[in-house]
Amino acid sequence: MTLWYGGDYNPEQWDPAVWKEDVDLMRRAGVNLVTVGVFSWSSIEPRPGEYTFGWLDQVLDLLHDGGVSVDLATPTASPPPWFSRLHPEALPVTADGVRLTHGSRDTYCACAPAYRDAARGIAGALAERYADHPALAMWHVHNEYGTTCYCPLAAERFRDWLRERYGSLDRLNEAWTTAFWSQGYADWRDIEPPRKTQYLVNPTQYLDFRRFWSDELLAAFREQKNVVRASSEAPITTNFVFGGWVPVNHAQWAAEVDVVAIDHYPDQAGIGAEEQTAFGADLARGWSGGKPWLLMEQAAGALNEGRRWHTKEPGRMARHSLPHVARGSRGALFFQWRASRGGAEMYHPAMVPHAGPDSRMFREITELGAVLPRLAEVAESNVVAEVAILWDVECWWAMQGTHLPSSELDYLKAVRAAHRHFWRAGVTVDFAAPDADLSSYGVVVVPSLYLISDEAAANLTTYVENGGQLVVGYFSGIVDTDLRVRHALTDLLGVRIEEFHPLADEVALASGGRGRLWSEDVHAVSAEVVDRYAGGVLDGRPAITRRQAGAGTAWYVSTELDDETAAGLVQELTGTGEPLETVRRRSGDTTWTFRINHGDEDVVVPATGVELVSGAPVDGEVTVPAGGYAVVRSE
Amino acid sequence: MTLWYGGDYNPEQWDPAVWKEDVDLMRRAGVNLVTVGVFSWSSIEPRPGEYTFGWLDQVLDLLHDGGVSVDLATPTASPPPWFSRLHPEALPVTADGVRLTHGSRDTYCACAPAYRDAARGIAGALAERYADHPALAMWHVHNEYGTTCYCPLAAERFRDWLRERYGSLDRLNEAWTTAFWSQGYADWRDIEPPRKTQYLVNPTQYLDFRRFWSDELLAAFREQKNVVRASSEAPITTNFVFGGWVPVNHAQWAAEVDVVAIDHYPDQAGIGAEEQTAFGADLARGWSGGKPWLLMEQAAGALNEGRRWHTKEPGRMARHSLPHVARGSRGALFFQWRASRGGAEMYHPAMVPHAGPDSRMFREITELGAVLPRLAEVAESNVVAEVAILWDVECWWAMQGTHLPSSELDYLKAVRAAHRHFWRAGVTVDFAAPDADLSSYGVVVVPSLYLISDEAAANLTTYVENGGQLVVGYFSGIVDTDLRVRHALTDLLGVRIEEFHPLADEVALASGGRGRLWSEDVHAVSAEVVDRYAGGVLDGRPAITRRQAGAGTAWYVSTELDDETAAGLVQELTGTGEPLETVRRRSGDTTWTFRINHGDEDVVVPATGVELVSGAPVDGEVTVPAGGYAVVRSE
Amino acid sequence: MTLWYGGDYNPEQWDPAVWKEDVDLMRRAGVNLVTVGVFSWSSIEPRPGEYTFGWLDQVLDLLHDGGVSVDLATPTASPPPWFSRLHPEALPVTADGVRLTHGSRDTYCACAPAYRDAARGIAGALAERYADHPALAMWHVHNEYGTTCYCPLAAERFRDWLRERYGSLDRLNEAWTTAFWSQGYADWRDIEPPRKTQYLVNPTQYLDFRRFWSDELLAAFREQKNVVRASSEAPITTNFVFGGWVPVNHAQWAAEVDVVAIDHYPDQAGIGAEEQTAFGADLARGWSGGKPWLLMEQAAGALNEGRRWHTKEPGRMARHSLPHVARGSRGALFFQWRASRGGAEMYHPAMVPHAGPDSRMFREITELGAVLPRLAEVAESNVVAEVAILWDVECWWAMQGTHLPSSELDYLKAVRAAHRHFWRAGVTVDFAAPDADLSSYGVVVVPSLYLISDEAAANLTTYVENGGQLVVGYFSGIVDTDLRVRHALTDLLGVRIEEFHPLADEVALASGGRGRLWSEDVHAVSAEVVDRYAGGVLDGRPAITRRQAGAGTAWYVSTELDDETAAGLVQELTGTGEPLETVRRRSGDTTWTFRINHGDEDVVVPATGVELVSGAPVDGEVTVPAGGYAVVRSE
Repeated sequence: MTLWYGGDYNPEQWDPAVWKEDVDLMRRAGVNLVTVGVFSWSSIEPRPGEYTFGWLDQVLDLLHDGGVSVDLATPTASPPPWFSRLHPEALPVTADGVRLTHGSRDTYCACAPAYRDAARGIAGALAERYADHPALAMWHVHNEYGTTCYCPLAAERFRDWLRERYGSLDRLNEAWTTAFWSQGYADWRDIEPPRKTQYLVNPTQYLDFRRFWSDELLAAFREQKNVVRASSEAPITTNFVFGGWVPVNHAQWAAEVDVVAIDHYPDQAGIGAEEQTAFGADLARGWSGGKPWLLMEQAAGALNEGRRWHTKEPGRMARHSLPHVARGSRGALFFQWRASRGGAEMYHPAMVPHAGPDSRMFREITELGAVLPRLAEVAESNVVAEVAILWDVECWWAMQGTHLPSSELDYLKAVRAAHRHFWRAGVTVDFAAPDADLSSYGVVVVPSLYLISDEAAANLTTYVENGGQLVVGYFSGIVDTDLRVRHALTDLLGVRIEEFHPLADEVALASGGRGRLWSEDVHAVSAEVVDRYAGGVLDGRPAITRRQAGAGTAWYVSTELDDETAAGLVQELTGTGEPLETVRRRSGDTTWTFRINHGDEDVVVPATGVELVSGAPVDGEVTVPAGGYAVVRSE
Repeated sequence: MTLWYGGDYNPEQWDPAVWKEDVDLMRRAGVNLVTVGVFSWSSIEPRPGEYTFGWLDQVLDLLHDGGVSVDLATPTASPPPWFSRLHPEALPVTADGVRLTHGSRDTYCACAPAYRDAARGIAGALAERYADHPALAMWHVHNEYGTTCYCPLAAERFRDWLRERYGSLDRLNEAWTTAFWSQGYADWRDIEPPRKTQYLVNPTQYLDFRRFWSDELLAAFREQKNVVRASSEAPITTNFVFGGWVPVNHAQWAAEVDVVAIDHYPDQAGIGAEEQTAFGADLARGWSGGKPWLLMEQAAGALNEGRRWHTKEPGRMARHSLPHVARGSRGALFFQWRASRGGAEMYHPAMVPHAGPDSRMFREITELGAVLPRLAEVAESNVVAEVAILWDVECWWAMQGTHLPSSELDYLKAVRAAHRHFWRAGVTVDFAAPDADLSSYGVVVVPSLYLISDEAAANLTTYVENGGQLVVGYFSGIVDTDLRVRHALTDLLGVRIEEFHPLADEVALASGGRGRLWSEDVHAVSAEVVDRYAGGVLDGRPAITRRQAGAGTAWYVSTELDDETAAGLVQELTGTGEPLETVRRRSGDTTWTFRINHGDEDVVVPATGVELVSGAPVDGEVTVPAGGYAVVRSE
Repeated sequence: MTLWYGGDYNPEQWDPAVWKEDVDLMRRAGVNLVTVGVFSWSSIEPRPGEYTFGWLDQVLDLLHDGGVSVDLATPTASPPPWFSRLHPEALPVTADGVRLTHGSRDTYCACAPAYRDAARGIAGALAERYADHPALAMWHVHNEYGTTCYCPLAAERFRDWLRERYGSLDRLNEAWTTAFWSQGYADWRDIEPPRKTQYLVNPTQYLDFRRFWSDELLAAFREQKNVVRASSEAPITTNFVFGGWVPVNHAQWAAEVDVVAIDHYPDQAGIGAEEQTAFGADLARGWSGGKPWLLMEQAAGALNEGRRWHTKEPGRMARHSLPHVARGSRGALFFQWRASRGGAEMYHPAMVPHAGPDSRMFREITELGAVLPRLAEVAESNVVAEVAILWDVECWWAMQGTHLPSSELDYLKAVRAAHRHFWRAGVTVDFAAPDADLSSYGVVVVPSLYLISDEAAANLTTYVENGGQLVVGYFSGIVDTDLRVRHALTDLLGVRIEEFHPLADEVALASGGRGRLWSEDVHAVSAEVVDRYAGGVLDGRPAITRRQAGAGTAWYVSTELDDETAAGLVQELTGTGEPLETVRRRSGDTTWTFRINHGDEDVVVPATGVELVSGAPVDGEVTVPAGGYAVVRSE
C-alpha cells in the first residue's frame, strides 16, 4: 500500500524544458501522483474538433519515466472561449438575471445540452487516448462540481426534477406550503427557479433548487463516468469542494465515486486552521463511510484568510497534512505543483514556489515526501472513533434559504463548534448521516439539526433506547423534509419547547457557564434539569436537560455553550481526554497512534512500540516535539 | 361601540378541521374581527377565470356562526403564478433593469394594464359574491400598497403624470433645474424613470417619481374601491405600511379610505419599540385627522430587530397594544392568527403560536381580549394634545433623493427624536401637515422640514403671529416643492443662515448641552440668542435663538440636541411632565386617562374616578403596576 | 504673465439679470478666467441640429466686457436627453450588463460611433462660432474623461486595440497567461471585455481593458482637438480627474494637451486634505514634465469627506489654493462660480454661495483674488525638487485587477504615504515616470511599484550606479508589463525575497520602529542589513537593507513603516527638514520661497528679500502667521 504524494500539475503553462526540471524535482520531493489536465481543454482542443494531444502525450511519458503516476482529469470545468461563443445559451445566468461572460473559469450552465454534449465528447476522447497509458493511476472527472445557474434551460430541468420528485402539483403545493402568499401552482410551466423576486423566496422552493442542482450535477458526473468507464478500468473520482456555499450533497455523491477525494482550504490563520483540518478530514471519512479517501488539494505554503494569504510557519505545512493521513486520507496532495507565472491564481501557494526549489517551502515539501512512505502501513487500517456527530447538508441548505428567527443561526458554525469541543479534548469523532446505523457509538451529538426526517428522528430514538448517549443541540428537529414545522425530537428529549428566545447578548447559566446566540423556553416534561438559565427573561427555566430513555440517555442543550462549559460536557460524556491532537488507527491487534503537537512546548505522552517517523523503538513514553508529531505502532 | 380584536386569518393553509378549532379559539380569545383573503388569489382563482369560492364560503359561514366578523381582503397584492406566466410584461423591473420573477409576494407592476384589469376583475367577483354575507364588516382592498417598478409601462405612465403636473416642458425643465448637467427636455418621450444612471440622479426627477407612484397606486386603489362599492356599502379600507421606504403619501390617501388602517412593526428590541409604538399611533391619528383609526397588523409575540426576532417579555404584548388604543385605534389586530406551518413567514409571530393555545403567548392574547371590551367606551372620544409635530412625507422623499451636505441627515430620525423627547415627558402630541390649521396647539415643532411650500411657510408665520410657540429644527425650510434652494423660514425666525457645518463629532453648547450631526453659522438678525456654540469653528456663534413675532414666539435650534438638553426645552415649552406614558381622551366632560408603565417598579399617580380594567373606583390615586397599565375615567 | 483666477460658470441656470450681477461680482473678486459650456449641450442644441447660440453669445460678450476671459468647453461629457433616445445603443453598459439610463451626466459609451459623430459635430460648431471671440482664452475639450463601458461596441473596439497591441493571438495568449484556466484564444472574436464572470477575472485582460479605455478616450479627445484646431489657434486642454478609479493615463495624455489641467478634490477633512493638495499638485507637475499646469477645479468652501461636506475653516480655502500655485499651477480655479439653485449638485460649494456675496466665503474669495496678482512673477519659474517619487498608473491598474496576496496592498496609499513623509519634513518632491531621466535627483523613492518594465528596472540601475540614492518599497518590481512574475529589482537591491508575509497586525523592528500590512522573508545577498524584524515568524530576518552599487546606494524597505521611522529615514536621506510646508521656485538667480503654515501658532523662519503678499522687505526672518502663508523673493 502506498500513500499518494503530489498535486495538481498544469504543465501547459511552461515550456518543455521546465517539464524536465519538474519531473526531476518531483523525484527529489518524493512525489508519486500528479493531477494533470484540469484546465487543459483549450490546450487539447484549441478549435472545435481539433485535438492537439501531442504535448500531453509527452508530459505523461515524461512523468511515467520519472516514476510519477497520473490522476488524469477531464477538463470540463473550464470550457475554452470558442465554446462560449458558439453556444451563448450555455453561459450561466445569476439569480439577478446577469448572463456571465467567459473570462474566468467554470463559466457554463450544466443544464445546457451543448455543454453536456461537449463534456462527454472531450471526456471520451481523453479516455480513449489514455486508457492504456502506463502512467494512468486514476481518472479525475471535472473539478470541484459546484456551479449553478438560473437560466431558462435550468428552469426546464428543474421542472422535470420536480415532476419526478413530487408526481403531482398537489403534492408539490403541499410541500412548498404554496397556500401561503398565493403561490399555488396549477400548471407545471408556472414554476421558476428562485430568481430575484420582490421579497423573501419560498424556502422549500429554494431547498428543492439546491437539491435539484446536486442531482443535476451528479447526472453530469455520471455521464462522464460512463464514458470514461467504457474505455478504462482505472478508478474514477472527482474532487469534492467544501466552503460556505457547497452546492452538492457529498454524502450522496460518495456512493458514485471509486474513491472520495476532497479539496481542503482552511480560511482562518490561527488555530482555527488546525480545527478545520481535522473537521474536513473527519467529514471526508464520514462521506466515504469510514473507508480510506484522498486529500486531493490543499495549499502548500499559506492559508487564505479571505483578506490575505497567511504564510505557514515552519513545520505547519506538515502539521496540516499529517492529520489528514491520520484521519484516513490515502495521501496528501496540493494545488498546485509549480506556482503560476501569471493568471488569476499567480499568488496561490505551490509546492515549488516562485522562489524556486532553493527555499524553505520546497525543503519542507521534500521532508514531508520522505516521511509519508514510513506511514504507508496505516493506509488500510480503521480510524477508531466512539463519538459521532450528525451531518446533513440538506439541513444546511434549508437554513440558508429560510428566514430564520435569528440570522446568526448557522448550521456549519454549530457543527464546527461541536467538533471543536471534542478535538480540543483529543477525542476523535466520526461524522454520520442522521439515518445511519449509530449503534457502534457511545455518544452521538446532534448540533442544530433543524431539518430532520421522521425516519431519522426514529433512528435517534432507537439509538437511545438501545443504550446510546444522545446530545441534541438547540434548534434541532424543527422541520420535516418539506420544511414544515413540527418538533420531532421533543418526545425523545422529554421536553416541550414553548418559545424561541434568540439572544443578542450572552446569558448566564446557573452552573456558572454562559449561553449565547440562542435560548429557548424549555419545559421539562419527563426530563431532569441539568442546568438552568440565570437572569434574563428565562431566569430559572431549564437550559440543559437529560432524560433516561430505555437503556440510554437523551440530553438537550437549548443554547450555544461557551467553550469551557462545553468542555465539561465532553468530559462527562466521554470520560477521556488527550493533551494533543490524537488519532488512533487499528487493524487486527495493531494500533497506530498519531499525535500532533500544535503547541510551543514538547509534550511527553505514554506510548510503547515503534515510532514510525524515526523508526525508533518506544518504551513507555514518547516525546512529541513542539510543532511536530509522532506516530507509534503498538501491538 | 366596539373595539376590534383579532388579526389576519389565512385559513387556506389548513384543513377544515383546523378551521373549527380556530373559531373556537377565537371565541376563547375574544376575537371579533379577522382579515381574510389577503393571500387567497391562487386559492380562489387557481386557473384563469376558474373560481373556487366554496372553501371561502365555508370559512365565512364558520366565522359568522362563531360571532367573528370579517374584514374581507381583495387578494390583489399577490397575483397567482399563472398570471405572471400569461403576462410577463406585468412583472416588475428594478432600477437596475432586473425583471423580477414570481416566487415571493407583491411581484407585479401596478402600471401594467393586464394587472389592473385582473385586479378589478377579482375584486369585483369577491364584492359580488360576499356583499351580503352577514360576516362582512369591512373591505380590505389589497395589502400594504408599496411596490414600484421602473419598466417601460411605468415610464409611460410617469410621462403622463408629468404632463398632467407640469403642463409644459418649460415648466418641468424649470422645476427639475435641467439647465444643469445638460438635462433640458424638448420632447416628452425623452423622460425616463430615475433608473440606474452614471452618477447622481436628478433629485426632483426622483421626487416626482415618488409622487407619481403614490398617485398611481392611489388610482389603482380607487379603481378597486369603485368596483367594490358598486356591490357593497360596507366600509372600505387598505392597510398603510410604514418603514424605511414608504412609497405612498398616507396623509393624502387617508381622504380616500373609510377608515385609516395601519400596520405597525417596531424594529428595535429595547425601549425604542415603545417609542415607535406611540410614534406610529400618533402618526396614524394625524393621517386620519384626529378621527378613530385602526391598528390592522402588529406582531404578537416578538419584535423583529432585523437580525433576529426578540421575544416579547410577559405583559409587553399588551403594553404595545394599549398605546394604540389610547392614541385612537379602534382596536388591536395582529398578523397573523395562527402561525404558518411552512413558507416564507413560518417564523413570523402569531396569536396562536407553533406551541399552540397552551402557551404563555396565547394566554396573554386571551387576557388582552378580555380587557378590550372594558375600554370600548373610549372609542369615540378625542385624544387631547396641545403640541403638534409637523410631518410631510414629501420632505422625506426629497431628502432620500438629494445628495445632501451630510449623509446623516435623516428626516425620519429627526422627527422620531422630536416625538421621543415629548413621549419621555409623558406629553401627547399630534402630527399635523405643514399647511394644516395649527391654531389649537400651544406648541408646534418642525423637525428638519427641509422641503416646505411657500404656503406652509406662510401658515407657520400666521401661527406664530397669532400667539403660537413654534420650534423649528435645523435644516428646515431650505427648498421649495421643486427642490430649489431658498430659505423660507429665516424671516420668521429672525436669523440668517450663512453656512452649514455638518458635524462628524459632537459640539459643546455654552449652556452645557451638546449638539451633534449638524450645526450652522447662524446670524441673529432680529432674534435673541438662547444658547451658543462653545468651542470649534463656530465658537461663540448662536446655536439656539428665539424671536418674538406678533403674539407668539419662533425658536430656532440649529443642531441636533442631546436628550437632556432637549428635555429641558420640552419642559420650558410645555411646563408639564408625567412620570409614565400618559394619554388623555376626552368626550364632553368625561376624561379617560391611560397610563402605561414600561418600567420595573409600580408607580402611584393621582387619579379620581373609575379604573376601567379592574372596574374599581379610584379616589385620589391609582397604582400603575410595573409593566402594567391603568385607565381611569373621570367626570 | 498672469495667474488665472476663477471657475466653472454655468449661466444657463439663471436669468440674464443674474449674469450681469455675476460679472460685477467677478470683477470684485479679481476673476479673470471662467470655464463656460461644460454642461450646455442641451441648451445650445435643444433638438437635433437646432442650435441656439444666442444666449451664449450674450454671456461671452458680457464676460469680455467685464474683462473676464473664457475657457470655452465642448459640452460632450453630457449629451442631451434626445441623443439617448435616438441612439439607445450609445448608452453605456456596466460590467454586470446593466444598460444605464439618461438622467445624470456622462451617460454615453465613447465607443459608439453615433456618440463620436455627435461629439465632433457640436465641438466643430462651437469652434467655428467662437474661434474669433475676443473673450476666448482657451478650449476645454469635454470634462473629466473617465467613463467606460462594457457593451458590444466597446468589445469590438477592444478587440481591435488588442490586435494592434499584440499582432498575434500567440503573443496575446502568452501575455495573458491563458494556458491557465483553459483560456487560450484561437479566434479574435472569442475575446470579450472583463465583464462579470464566474470567478476571478484574468488580471492581464483586466489591465489591457484599462489601457484600452485610456487609449480610446484619448482618441476621442484627439478627434475633438483636431476639429477645434481646424478653426482656432487657442490653447486646447481637458481637465484631468483623479480619484479612486482613474480611467486614463494622465502622464501619457499630458503630451496631447497644450496645458495640463487638473481637478482636485481632497476626500479628508483633517490635515489629510493638505497632504492630498500637495500630492495632487506635485503629480500634476510630474505629468506636465515640470512645466506650469493649471488647477482647473477645486471646491471653494468645503471638503467632501464622502459622508459629509466639511466646511473649510477661515483662511483654509487660501491655504488649499496657495500650495497649487507654489507647486506650479498657473492659477486657482473652482467648481463652480455660483451655487446651483437646484439639481444634483445644489450643495456643491461655490465661489458665490447660497448665502450670496455678503458672506465670509465670498470675502475670502475676494481676498485670494487680490493676492494672486502679487504672485504672478513666479509663474514661469521652476519648482526646486531634489527628491523624486516614481508614479505609474498602470501599476495601480494592475494592482486593482489582480488577486494579490493581501487585499490591503494599495498602490495609491503607498505612494501617498511616501509623499506624506517628505511633505511633513517640508521637502518638495517631484513625481517621475519609472523610465524618466532621474539623474537630477539626489533621492528616488519607489513605493510598491509592483509592475515594472525591464527598461524601467534598467533605468533604476543606471540611476544608482551613477550615484543616486534609491529607496525601493515592499512589493516592488514583482511583475513585468504582462503581469508575469519575476523579481526585477532584487539584483540591484542585493537581496533575495523568498516569501511574502502579509501582516494582519503590526510587527516590531529591532530599531524600535514598527512595520504593518506587509513583510517579506528577505535574504541579504549582497546588501547590508539596516534594520531587522523583531519577534514574529521573521524574528531576526532583514527588514531594511542597503546596498552600495557603483557610485550610489539602493535601499530596500520590506514593510510599511510607521510614520516616525519613516521620518528618520527621510532625514537620513535628505539631511534637511523644514518646520512648515515649504516650496522653492527658481528662475536664474532669483528664488521664491513659499511657506504655508497649517498650524495654530505663528512660525518665524529665516528669510531675506521681499515678501510678495505684503510687499514688505524681509531681512533675516519672516513670520508666517498661524493659518497663513508668506512668499519671499530672494536674489
